[in-house]
Amino acid sequence: MSAPFQVVASAGRARAGLLQTAHGVVETPVFMPVGTQATVKALSSADLTRLGARIILGNTYHLALRPGAERIASFGGLHRFMSWPNAILTDSGGYQVFSLRDRRTVDDAGVTFRSHLDGSEQRLTPERAMAIQTALASDIAMAFDECPPSDAPREVIEAAISRTTRWARACVDAPAPPGQLRFGIVQGGVHLDLRRAHLAEIAALPFDGLALGGLGVGEAPDVMYGVIDAVAADMPADRPRYLMGVGTPKDIWTAIGAGVDMFDCVMPTRNARNGHLFVRGGHINIANAQFRDDPRPVEDGCPCECCASYSRGYLAHLFRAEELLYYRLASIHNLEHYLGLARRARAAIVAGAFPASPW
Amino acid sequence: MSAPFQVVASAGRARAGLLQTAHGVVETPVFMPVGTQATVKALSSADLTRLGARIILGNTYHLALRPGAERIASFGGLHRFMSWPNAILTDSGGYQVFSLRDRRTVDDAGVTFRSHLDGSEQRLTPERAMAIQTALASDIAMAFDECPPSDAPREVIEAAISRTTRWARACVDAPAPPGQLRFGIVQGGVHLDLRRAHLAEIAALPFDGLALGGLGVGEAPDVMYGVIDAVAADMPADRPRYLMGVGTPKDIWTAIGAGVDMFDCVMPTRNARNGHLFVRGGHINIANAQFRDDPRPVEDGCPCECCASYSRGYLAHLFRAEELLYYRLASIHNLEHYLGLARRARAAIVAGAFPASPW
Repeated sequence: MSAPFQVVASAGRARAGLLQTAHGVVETPVFMPVGTQATVKALSSADLTRLGARIILGNTYHLALRPGAERIASFGGLHRFMSWPNAILTDSGGYQVFSLRDRRTVDDAGVTFRSHLDGSEQRLTPERAMAIQTALASDIAMAFDECPPSDAPREVIEAAISRTTRWARACVDAPAPPGQLRFGIVQGGVHLDLRRAHLAEIAALPFDGLALGGLGVGEAPDVMYGVIDAVAADMPADRPRYLMGVGTPKDIWTAIGAGVDMFDCVMPTRNARNGHLFVRGGHINIANAQFRDDPRPVEDGCPCECCASYSRGYLAHLFRAEELLYYRLASIHNLEHYLGLARRARAAIVAGAFPASPW
Repeated sequence: MSAPFQVVASAGRARAGLLQTAHGVVETPVFMPVGTQATVKALSSADLTRLGARIILGNTYHLALRPGAERIASFGGLHRFMSWPNAILTDSGGYQVFSLRDRRTVDDAGVTFRSHLDGSEQRLTPERAMAIQTALASDIAMAFDECPPSDAPREVIEAAISRTTRWARACVDAPAPPGQLRFGIVQGGVHLDLRRAHLAEIAALPFDGLALGGLGVGEAPDVMYGVIDAVAADMPADRPRYLMGVGTPKDIWTAIGAGVDMFDCVMPTRNARNGHLFVRGGHINIANAQFRDDPRPVEDGCPCECCASYSRGYLAHLFRAEELLYYRLASIHNLEHYLGLARRARAAIVAGAFPASPW
């Protein structure tokens, strides 16, 4: 079997690649919209297809609690359940359960936590995280990792790293459904020596791709950029590199320049719902009174359904009236901004030059 | 100028017609989705076009308060503001302001009321209602009427009728934008003699269509059917007949059989948001636990986007998770049910036989 990932062009350290999944080829760099609860909030699968999304992310933690991984399996897997024909990457639930700071206890075999929905006791282990992702039948499954807080003492991060490596081995050994790719996660906070040591351990395992976890969790952007710049250069060139949960358009562009291939973030959809709409080089806040009388689209020249048909004034009205249509149109626009950013990056790399700024 | 309405077929008292508006020809019988605040809740104009809607309703009361009729006019009218290329009927605000029972006072010239948004004092008169509908640039404007409660004493209804007739004359005399049709409203509660007397007064005015108001406001269905059956027969055959704000699929089918041509109701969209999904001859409540494991579409054979791609199980999950996509998919399905009902009625009438039940 040929390797699932191929670099087809590069410009400096930025790469353009092709990632073969069981549900189609994904062109990288790629942004993956976040579909936490088997839906990218406010959008249908047809909306995502119209936006040109070819891979989305699903959340193991949320889906396992509701509607339940076994229920999704009974519907034929997550693709069929949510009527999404393209690729899906699932996270392992690690990030979410470690975010439940006072509702979870960690031991060497896994994490016991209380559901945010009903308070019921639940347990996630490397084996269970992979079994859930097998039931969901995602195209890319992430290893179960320990994600310490950004301000954790070095000893805590060292302990998390060694536990994450042991769990990564358990994930590699867990049964995989045919065609599912598995990615390992590199932790280490902002300590470059720990990041490099952990990368060596994870890269030694037979993962199809490698991710940087535990970034964009409160550290200053320049500190994060420094870690990405240093660590991405050491990540194996023949496997896709995924920066988890990051970030702003600038964060993503900078990371692409450092050689990262894959991204996900709730920012475009969450910010959309709060009135924050991305435009080239910045954003507008649709709650501002001036936009009530503005006949222009959110962004001139934007090809999205929102900008093609609706004005800032109309969106400002829908936002104030809390009309459901607002959330959909705003999410479409912000996702177009992120997906377009990745497409623009790829086109620049293929053309042989990756500029310092997308605009 | 030729008459804007033509009856092209009939079956018993049921009629199939063509209503010419400034934004296209509307085939009747027709159901008009309700777009209260310049959006049919949860749906875009493209969604409505895909559903085959050719005319929707806008609410003068809501639009005048927010974003304001003059603001909509500055965007080129309601069609442009909400990016809707087909026909729009606007109500006059009468029903809404009379629903504000303890927030309004009536005099012979109009109604003074407090906004439900900010408590500010507002006033609506026949002249202002028509001026607002002119600013909105709707294709069909409704006369400003007094709509008494269904349980009002006969004297109150008599007084409302005579005020509504005076106001109707003022509406007819108000300036109209080119191409806008104007419909009068017949009141009279459930008193057939009052309904007939008021119909004679309103029908004598040069309205392009006539509506029955004040039905479906709490009276028993059979009482309502009796009024519709008796009064529709007396309404001028050469003008469209519009039953305002009614009702269930059975109500609509029954009224079509009595010769009514046009309908609007919030029921399909409001019920959708509450979990009530229409199916042939009844409904299902998606909140019921059984649907969590049901792989079937909401309704077998339904051509809507919801039924074409998604299962009851997926909708049940979205509903429980309060995901925004639920509201859109459910609204699409329920509107397909109502729009399909009207299309089915028209096809039956054109074929020469209108059955007692659609199924």
